[in-house]
Amino acid sequence: MINVQFAALPERWAAYEAPLRAAFADAGLEVDLRLDHTPDEVDYVVYAPNSDLQDFTPYTRCKAVLSLWAGVEKIVGNRTLTMPLCRMVDPGLTAGMVEWVTGHVLRYHLDIDRTIHTQDRWAPVVPPLAEERPVTVLGLGALGQACASMLATLGFPVTGWSRSEKSIDGITCRHGDAGLRDALAMAEIVVLLLPDTPATENTLNSDTLSLLPKWACIINPGRGPLIDDDALLAALDRGQIDHATLDVFRVEPLPMEHRYWTHPNVTVTPHIAAETRPLTAARVIAENIRRGEADDAFLHQVDRTLGY
Amino acid sequence: MINVQFAALPERWAAYEAPLRAAFADAGLEVDLRLDHTPDEVDYVVYAPNSDLQDFTPYTRCKAVLSLWAGVEKIVGNRTLTMPLCRMVDPGLTAGMVEWVTGHVLRYHLDIDRTIHTQDRWAPVVPPLAEERPVTVLGLGALGQACASMLATLGFPVTGWSRSEKSIDGITCRHGDAGLRDALAMAEIVVLLLPDTPATENTLNSDTLSLLPKWACIINPGRGPLIDDDALLAALDRGQIDHATLDVFRVEPLPMEHRYWTHPNVTVTPHIAAETRPLTAARVIAENIRRGEADDAFLHQVDRTLGY
Repeated sequence: MINVQFAALPERWAAYEAPLRAAFADAGLEVDLRLDHTPDEVDYVVYAPNSDLQDFTPYTRCKAVLSLWAGVEKIVGNRTLTMPLCRMVDPGLTAGMVEWVTGHVLRYHLDIDRTIHTQDRWAPVVPPLAEERPVTVLGLGALGQACASMLATLGFPVTGWSRSEKSIDGITCRHGDAGLRDALAMAEIVVLLLPDTPATENTLNSDTLSLLPKWACIINPGRGPLIDDDALLAALDRGQIDHATLDVFRVEPLPMEHRYWTHPNVTVTPHIAAETRPLTAARVIAENIRRGEADDAFLHQVDRTLGY
Repeated sequence: MINVQFAALPERWAAYEAPLRAAFADAGLEVDLRLDHTPDEVDYVVYAPNSDLQDFTPYTRCKAVLSLWAGVEKIVGNRTLTMPLCRMVDPGLTAGMVEWVTGHVLRYHLDIDRTIHTQDRWAPVVPPLAEERPVTVLGLGALGQACASMLATLGFPVTGWSRSEKSIDGITCRHGDAGLRDALAMAEIVVLLLPDTPATENTLNSDTLSLLPKWACIINPGRGPLIDDDALLAALDRGQIDHATLDVFRVEPLPMEHRYWTHPNVTVTPHIAAETRPLTAARVIAENIRRGEADDAFLHQVDRTLGY
């Protein structure tokens, strides 16, 4: 019997219990899944970083902490977490992110806001083709790659940027500091899908925002600290940036007094771009437990040095 | 020397002259391209159906009329047009249509209108995945197939309907009257891309609209007469249909007194979903002239019985 503790906000239990039990059964795993195991008897922790569990010291035999979230920045620096930590790379979450990013890129590309807001006369303006609209995706992890590839399939010329060198079919790949400048200089639409690490904080700041062509649009479904908020607001105020659609923020929920809520060129969405989907995520958790039991390498194990 | 007459509104000449000359040169065709050939010396007419040229009787040696438009309903019944008539199937027009349709399907799917209009509180609602949102495309010609395939690539379960039986990878194909009822019964989003023929007029009428699930959305980038406007307005008024985005109308420009302009659940766009793009369209025209000179079958020749 494998003891698995579910450590997330209590309301998540209702969504995850049945999918997890089904996935364990499908994987042939005999699991005792509970909210309240005795810590030193726990083999695996299924974990949401906003859970009450922050001290892993008593989990002396735990083989891995399996995050339900893709972003693990809230927990990666926890010194009591000495066992392997795995991020969630959920096919359902990835699909949802691709849909959200593609929808908002096309919204900008087709100028759908103007279509909706100024419906008062017959004044045809045919948008350019996607092939004439360069898009840059910052971050080429699982989510960034999936979004970049879908946008390329739609015909956009896509540049992808990552910290380390990558090569992806159909995507112009750039890396490093010089590569970032190249990637921004040509981008009419920028999508941020970098992990939140000390190295990525304020990737978009007054310096890098000024590299973008005038009237560029920003889409951030990644993490709030990737953007220097004051610099973005200044760039929006002076028209350097045409519009920003922001799904993630340094403080969430975004405080009601924040200028983003009322800025005419900002769209705020409440961290909905990507959510872990219980059915597909449960299968990933089960697969990692199967791997742990078989002494195989875990999927999506976090590199503590890199932070993701 | 091949005599080609350009018969379209004069302002189109500026957009098409250079691309046509370039495409003829690339195809190795020696062409005398003009606005004002003597009719009985013309070999081919490059034609826009809203041109002044409506009597083809004097064009006694003309081998083909090559339309710049995909829809030829304005000219297909012209009894003086006895030579072959070819529709435009422009790769640039197809790409633009795919972008417009995909953008508006994702706009409905992600509820982007609500995102834009009601930005006043942090109230996360995660949209379902595309795989949970059935879309039906009416019409499986070049445009319908391209749109259906892109939507399927994004994960939507796509049903396509056509007059005659078709088979397309990844698309559930239906045909005929019974097939139309099946295709509508499951559609949360319906895209109309049928040709405008007597058989397709009022494809969406009070009967067929009532087959749709409550709160379905309609997207019409095809042709205005495909929809019985009074029936659609009634269905919108009683909430059977949640929203309609209409790019084409029986009378264009849509008269300013038409209820579509002011209905809160209708978005009017001014026939911009698809436009022939000179660079790519000129290559199609040149290829058809090459075929005519070589006695090869024309591309996209209209079947007068079917009307497209």
